[in-house]
Amino acid sequence: MLFKVTMDVQLPHTMPKETADALKSRERELAQSLQRSGKWRHLWRVVGRYANVSIFDVASSAELHDLLLTLPLFPYMKIEVEALCRHPSSIHEDER
Amino acid sequence: MLFKVTMDVQLPHTMPKETADALKSRERELAQSLQRSGKWRHLWRVVGRYANVSIFDVASSAELHDLLLTLPLFPYMKIEVEALCRHPSSIHEDER
Amino acid sequence: MLFKVTMDVQLPHTMPKETADALKSRERELAQSLQRSGKWRHLWRVVGRYANVSIFDVASSAELHDLLLTLPLFPYMKIEVEALCRHPSSIHEDER
Amino acid sequence: MLFKVTMDVQLPHTMPKETADALKSRERELAQSLQRSGKWRHLWRVVGRYANVSIFDVASSAELHDLLLTLPLFPYMKIEVEALCRHPSSIHEDER
Amino acid sequence: MLFKVTMDVQLPHTMPKETADALKSRERELAQSLQRSGKWRHLWRVVGRYANVSIFDVASSAELHDLLLTLPLFPYMKIEVEALCRHPSSIHEDER
Amino acid sequence: MLFKVTMDVQLPHTMPKETADALKSRERELAQSLQRSGKWRHLWRVVGRYANVSIFDVASSAELHDLLLTLPLFPYMKIEVEALCRHPSSIHEDER
Amino acid sequence: MLFKVTMDVQLPHTMPKETADALKSRERELAQSLQRSGKWRHLWRVVGRYANVSIFDVASSAELHDLLLTLPLFPYMKIEVEALCRHPSSIHEDER
Amino acid sequence: MLFKVTMDVQLPHTMPKETADALKSRERELAQSLQRSGKWRHLWRVVGRYANVSIFDVASSAELHDLLLTLPLFPYMKIEVEALCRHPSSIHEDER
Amino acid sequence: MLFKVTMDVQLPHTMPKETADALKSRERELAQSLQRSGKWRHLWRVVGRYANVSIFDVASSAELHDLLLTLPLFPYMKIEVEALCRHPSSIHEDER
Amino acid sequence: MLFKVTMDVQLPHTMPKETADALKSRERELAQSLQRSGKWRHLWRVVGRYANVSIFDVASSAELHDLLLTLPLFPYMKIEVEALCRHPSSIHEDER
Repeated sequence: MLFKVTMDVQLPHTMPKETADALKSRERELAQSLQRSGKWRHLWRVVGRYANVSIFDVASSAELHDLLLTLPLFPYMKIEVEALCRHPSSIHEDER
Repeated sequence: MLFKVTMDVQLPHTMPKETADALKSRERELAQSLQRSGKWRHLWRVVGRYANVSIFDVASSAELHDLLLTLPLFPYMKIEVEALCRHPSSIHEDER
Repeated sequence: MLFKVTMDVQLPHTMPKETADALKSRERELAQSLQRSGKWRHLWRVVGRYANVSIFDVASSAELHDLLLTLPLFPYMKIEVEALCRHPSSIHEDER
Repeated sequence: MLFKVTMDVQLPHTMPKETADALKSRERELAQSLQRSGKWRHLWRVVGRYANVSIFDVASSAELHDLLLTLPLFPYMKIEVEALCRHPSSIHEDER
Repeated sequence: MLFKVTMDVQLPHTMPKETADALKSRERELAQSLQRSGKWRHLWRVVGRYANVSIFDVASSAELHDLLLTLPLFPYMKIEVEALCRHPSSIHEDER
Repeated sequence: MLFKVTMDVQLPHTMPKETADALKSRERELAQSLQRSGKWRHLWRVVGRYANVSIFDVASSAELHDLLLTLPLFPYMKIEVEALCRHPSSIHEDER
Repeated sequence: MLFKVTMDVQLPHTMPKETADALKSRERELAQSLQRSGKWRHLWRVVGRYANVSIFDVASSAELHDLLLTLPLFPYMKIEVEALCRHPSSIHEDER
Repeated sequence: MLFKVTMDVQLPHTMPKETADALKSRERELAQSLQRSGKWRHLWRVVGRYANVSIFDVASSAELHDLLLTLPLFPYMKIEVEALCRHPSSIHEDER
Repeated sequence: MLFKVTMDVQLPHTMPKETADALKSRERELAQSLQRSGKWRHLWRVVGRYANVSIFDVASSAELHDLLLTLPLFPYMKIEVEALCRHPSSIHEDER
Repeated sequence: MLFKVTMDVQLPHTMPKETADALKSRERELAQSLQRSGKWRHLWRVVGRYANVSIFDVASSAELHDLLLTLPLFPYMKIEVEALCRHPSSIHEDER
């Protein structure tokens, strides 16, 4: 099941650089692991902003919530979720 | 070059059903042709709305504009365009 | 899987009363049938507005979209969909 | 009488983890007690956000206000309240 | 129980003057009757707009919805409802 | 002359409890004194929020501004002012 | 007493030119008469829009409402009213 | 050339009273000097808010920007600028 | 003096194609004439929308208003105007 | 390829003046270097705000993102990006 997820990151300016770097490093590792698993199907940067547009492919919305909660940057992100499904004009039979 | 495009369709309630059906049929043909060409890389329905979220892969923003202008439903759509690029945490080397 | 759905109805003032009544009657029948099937779990009126707040329990977001599309009032409603899941402080083991 | 209540939690990043944990623990206890009493009829997590959608069943709006004020997280929540009532197409005779 | 209700009226410019006058006349009669009954406790004009701010005193939110539905101008109004209760700094013991 | 005033209070989380209590105590005293004088005609709590909806009856908008400025919580409130007047369907001859 | 009033005019595209011209002509006459009386103290065009920013000087907000209601374009305008008063840093003793 | 300028002041609650008083005192001096020069033609307080509505009369928009930059409260203000010009229904030949 | 102007065009779907074509043709002629005169310094299409972003170079805001009023599509456009000036980090001495 | 970029700068009031000056100085150097290279084609100040409107001419949206990321003020700016292209009524053959 597909969801479009938009994440806007806002780290406090007072956060020490080491803390921020550690958070980002762990975030990247998890993001890459989830991409390899196929759950985080697409991950794009929004031009000009510290934000991404992502497509998740999960078994349920509960699974999506649990995944997002594990992201190290979760407390510093504004997240918007939108449910997607196959478009009748798609040339693919599945939601791809 | 990738762009996320959101299209909300609003046909006037006074439009005859035949006119609407003809527009939608031509829209679908063009959408499928553009998907096969690789320009319209993804096309998803937004759940609960007569709207789609799409990813276009074009050579320039001018090419994107020209493509969108050719859509038969263009005069009846509210369109939002957002430039995307490769995310540094993507597991792919390209913008895929 | 649960989704909160908000539907705001706006019938054109020019619609003949018979057409509106027929639409509403078919809408009610379908809404009641979907409630009895358990898919449309809750249906509440928003005080002071021709709108409802609903909870749907479906197998997938695609199923939700297909259900909403069949509603006779669909072309006249502004619909917003929000994915819900079990809250960790809920006293129930499931999403109820 | 039914009210839909949406609560968005925003704890300050500077709050010590122990303080936050204590607040959340007391919030959970009270939320569960109110659920068991039947006042807090439904409690769902909004997917991807530290927020909930709830349905309260109270004798008056004053009672609802008093309940919300006792929540330990009240000072850290953005709360929206919307009055609901039975929908004429509901299959139930009461507001359930 | 008190509710603040804001009503913005927007009659279509194409409505014949007689129809509009008849609607307004019936609206006024009903509004005055509800004021005399004590249900519609206050009714004020918003300066510069075809709109009012009102305070209703009803037994339940369902009763409020039923009252608003009977207003002849209901189909032409944008209505917002907000639940109020006694303020702890009020000099009155009741919600007055 | 009547004005509807909405006040949303937002005390900084870092304010010591004693300071907050002293501010609120002085606010309450002044609010009650102004109610007794008839200037602050109505004061209601908005359900679920640290906010009020008020009706002021003053000789001029300048007088209203001067009153609001004297409120101890003024620096911590988001205030919105809307001018009201007698509604032509009111059953009272004055603005009551 | 001063009020800032913003008026945005939106005439229906279907209004015959003669009707529009007659409305505008009567609007101008009344606007000029009110300016000469000193009630409509300032009248400026907003650059690029069919809109104005105005300053009214009236005895009460009720008088302002009555004046605005008499404007021939009232049914076609979106009006916003904001109460103003003398600024403490003004070099004038009055609200001028 | 006329511009309407709206300034909303938001001083940090942590600013020492002496610093705030000094800023406000210098702001007032400059505001009065600019009023006497004729550049800051009108200065009104918005009722109920720490904000003003002003009319500037300058030779160019660049001059307006330079004036606003010199205001001691500039870093603490949200400023909105709107270009105005003579209204065709004004009874004055100039922009007054 | 520079102004950024954004124009969103919305022609009624009921406008006959000949009328629309005639309007657009006259709009283009005037736009090109104003570009050649140097008043309409830049004219860009916003990708995906029937809208443009323009830079005007005029002697006064009144001149800008008069120019915009002469555009044949003026009654069908939503126009936003923003005053610009030379940026202190510009490598040019003038506003270019 | 052209992009309109709007940048709103918001430095924390607690930032030491030396830090702010150093950031601004490096920002100016880079901005001027990018202007000389032709990538940052236009840079204008928005009147009354610590903000700019810019036109970038880059080979791809990815290049634009990389340029913006290098700006020393990037963490303190709210940035909006809009893709532009040649307007059919432009008198130039290219996007100039």
